[in-house]
Amino acid sequence: MNYSVVKHIIGKIMELEGAFMLLPALVALIYREKQGLSFIYVAAGSALIGFIISRKKPENMNFYLKEGFVTVALSWIVMSVVGSLPFFINGDIPNYIDALFETVSGFTTTGASILSSVDALAKCSIFWRSFTHWIGGMGVIVFLLAVLPMAGGSNMNLMKAESPGPSVGKIVPKIKKTASITYLIYISMTVAEFLFLLIGKMPVFEAICNSMATAGTGGFAVNDAGFFTQTPYIQWVVTVFMILFGVNFYVYYLMTIKRFSDAAKHEEARTYLIIIFVAAGIIAWDIHSLFDTVGEAIRHSFFQVGSIITTTGFASADFNAWPVTSQTILVMLMFIGACAGSTGGGIKVSRFIILIKTFFKEITSYLHPRSVKKIKLEGKPVEHEVLRSTNVYIITFIVLFTGSMLLISLEGNDLITNFTAVAATINNIGPGLELVGPTANFGHFNVLSKLVFIFDMLAGRLELFPILLLFCPSIWIRRRSKREQHNMEA
Amino acid sequence: MNYSVVKHIIGKIMELEGAFMLLPALVALIYREKQGLSFIYVAAGSALIGFIISRKKPENMNFYLKEGFVTVALSWIVMSVVGSLPFFINGDIPNYIDALFETVSGFTTTGASILSSVDALAKCSIFWRSFTHWIGGMGVIVFLLAVLPMAGGSNMNLMKAESPGPSVGKIVPKIKKTASITYLIYISMTVAEFLFLLIGKMPVFEAICNSMATAGTGGFAVNDAGFFTQTPYIQWVVTVFMILFGVNFYVYYLMTIKRFSDAAKHEEARTYLIIIFVAAGIIAWDIHSLFDTVGEAIRHSFFQVGSIITTTGFASADFNAWPVTSQTILVMLMFIGACAGSTGGGIKVSRFIILIKTFFKEITSYLHPRSVKKIKLEGKPVEHEVLRSTNVYIITFIVLFTGSMLLISLEGNDLITNFTAVAATINNIGPGLELVGPTANFGHFNVLSKLVFIFDMLAGRLELFPILLLFCPSIWIRRRSKREQHNMEA
Repeated sequence: MNYSVVKHIIGKIMELEGAFMLLPALVALIYREKQGLSFIYVAAGSALIGFIISRKKPENMNFYLKEGFVTVALSWIVMSVVGSLPFFINGDIPNYIDALFETVSGFTTTGASILSSVDALAKCSIFWRSFTHWIGGMGVIVFLLAVLPMAGGSNMNLMKAESPGPSVGKIVPKIKKTASITYLIYISMTVAEFLFLLIGKMPVFEAICNSMATAGTGGFAVNDAGFFTQTPYIQWVVTVFMILFGVNFYVYYLMTIKRFSDAAKHEEARTYLIIIFVAAGIIAWDIHSLFDTVGEAIRHSFFQVGSIITTTGFASADFNAWPVTSQTILVMLMFIGACAGSTGGGIKVSRFIILIKTFFKEITSYLHPRSVKKIKLEGKPVEHEVLRSTNVYIITFIVLFTGSMLLISLEGNDLITNFTAVAATINNIGPGLELVGPTANFGHFNVLSKLVFIFDMLAGRLELFPILLLFCPSIWIRRRSKREQHNMEA
Repeated sequence: MNYSVVKHIIGKIMELEGAFMLLPALVALIYREKQGLSFIYVAAGSALIGFIISRKKPENMNFYLKEGFVTVALSWIVMSVVGSLPFFINGDIPNYIDALFETVSGFTTTGASILSSVDALAKCSIFWRSFTHWIGGMGVIVFLLAVLPMAGGSNMNLMKAESPGPSVGKIVPKIKKTASITYLIYISMTVAEFLFLLIGKMPVFEAICNSMATAGTGGFAVNDAGFFTQTPYIQWVVTVFMILFGVNFYVYYLMTIKRFSDAAKHEEARTYLIIIFVAAGIIAWDIHSLFDTVGEAIRHSFFQVGSIITTTGFASADFNAWPVTSQTILVMLMFIGACAGSTGGGIKVSRFIILIKTFFKEITSYLHPRSVKKIKLEGKPVEHEVLRSTNVYIITFIVLFTGSMLLISLEGNDLITNFTAVAATINNIGPGLELVGPTANFGHFNVLSKLVFIFDMLAGRLELFPILLLFCPSIWIRRRSKREQHNMEA
């Protein structure tokens, strides 16, 4: 294990986070909030420690997938621990586990909150919550790759560990360029949403925070009313942008280089849109009697479907009070999630396409035992390695899910609360049903449950394995390399 | 497709079912019940039709897995349709869909009932319900293979389609002998339980019915009190036998040929027992305050754990009123199920062993990318084909499960009822939670939901694919074989 490069990258992440924290400090300056000081202290501390541990550039910058996983997992943990300190120091979230929960929920773009009221927070804290969504959405490591010069193979192993989806979303052969293009698209779309919200007369501060939360498919609201009381125009803008941020960013890249017909043919994006329209259609029909007009039912249906499938977690209506067919569909969407290569969470549409195709291939093989059809995705045969890893992903997901359910059940809440709370955290959504419904929050859970949720949110965001790998003792046992042994013997 | 052999075997099944129905007719004779006539009519009709369609022995007895699947699926459907007629004719279950539900629930050893009272039934009907469990438990096709002389390859494809588990449970190389040995063990153990129940002063009729229902891991009770009011001795006897019938029968074969140490080393059976003891231990601790003594808590914990993991579905206590940790564990056990090669349902312990080992293999491969360790089960490397089919099984299970949930949700019951009702039918267990809890029944569902459950019970019992294959149009399109075409051209 190449510890020096792991340390180096974590140091860089801490420097970067220190820089990011200057933004909420600026917000505090504008609103003249003394809570802003906490961001300056932590920013300074984080940047200093980061500078010290990353000062020495490691001789050997190469490392394997194992190091990639460990680096990414540790980076996210360090990022969350540091990021939670301002909330704790400025007193906005006086309990440290709660502050950590809120920050992990932010970076992982879950949007589950322990707060019963957002209105009581300082503006700088509200800004930092939404900003963590934006940073976590596209990934801080991907950001680092865009700005940091690094050796070839290493980047790939880092990107693999942080990118969502069954295969790595390389847009162009060069990783650095892929990371830059991704962030350029990300920033442009966030700005576009901000402008559309301004047109809808949303105040500037709210428009900034809501755009960042939508972009990262996060879900933290900027006030207690959330989207329940917003105008239909605003609700539609957010619906459209939630859905747009759930699309594979490769589609947008194809558009920027004017390959529109290729973009329109993208299988995952098309399937994703079909699922959204079918689900929203059924739900609109199922809930139409709850609303005054059909248009209203359609609007709330699309808002909730878009919010859940992209794992954003905003709510324009209390779907905990909706009929059971609609709830069943929403719970299913929780697991499907958004496209790979988007900012959304969940199991990902492309994995489901692969699973469904595997199912039909099996049926065909019974009918025509000698047929050797390969499973295709986006017109290309899916490699055996991707099929295998998709299956392993599902298995691991089930193991983690049931284990979490069991630990949460110790607290004695009802099964639906437990099931949807785990689903909402592991898939980085936010709200679930019953005690974690859209009008409730996660504050009432005990410390054990909160730690389980923190674990699930991180595991879910990083596609399970990086976080699980930290629990293998052999990662932490420093074995002497063959060369070191040889030198000692000589 | 070799239709003549499919027809031939279905004819044999109908003859056999006619013969089986003479037993409830005999029960009616003993108790002087006029309802017994219905069994004689249906037995005669079934045997006659069976004789007519199987009269001509097909020239070509060979067929492929496709025919095996179709034959088994159709046999089970025909068996259920015929088997439900006596209930309908003698008026014990006046609604035909209900009668079909009850019979499918019997043959598939689910044990879910639409009846609100068993006490109102004639003894011959009660006997037939329990007898269907016994017939379905080990499989009627397996029975046919034990008594019918057939060509080599064909048997294997039939057995493959009806046997539970990821790989075929061939005990000895010859299929006919495997089938005979299996049935000998099955009969001996059923008789043993009968004797133990007699010692506990259970009336003969009840002891026969309960032994058959335990043997098939069915779950139909012989009276409304079920096992709630039985003595601790009886409850322990049934607990032990439920658990014994959930063990892979290969273990018993090893014992009969005195290879005791091999039997004791059987990995699936050991894992199965460990799961039972751990689950029962946790539940006993979780529920101890609900009972007067710790012994009572342990007894009810073991009874329910044994009943659910073996997918029998008997109940000695109303676990719908137990704390949520116990319920979560029981719901998990619903999916794990019993050993492959037993009479139990569910996903099967061996499949879970394979899945868990796949998970750990993946973790190891991240740590040591160059290691090429093979997954082993029972000391032997698991073939790639079995790994693949296990994954496909899980995928298919999820597809079927969510589809069923959605259809059931149209009726508007709560999510827990819907989830556990689908789990209880697809895994062939019987009771679930809430509206399908151990003191409730399935009578209140509408016709659509009942048809979904009937489908799920059959699909679950036959390991999903045989039943699903019936829905492929190409199965039913009779194409001319190459040779026929050639003859016509000549």
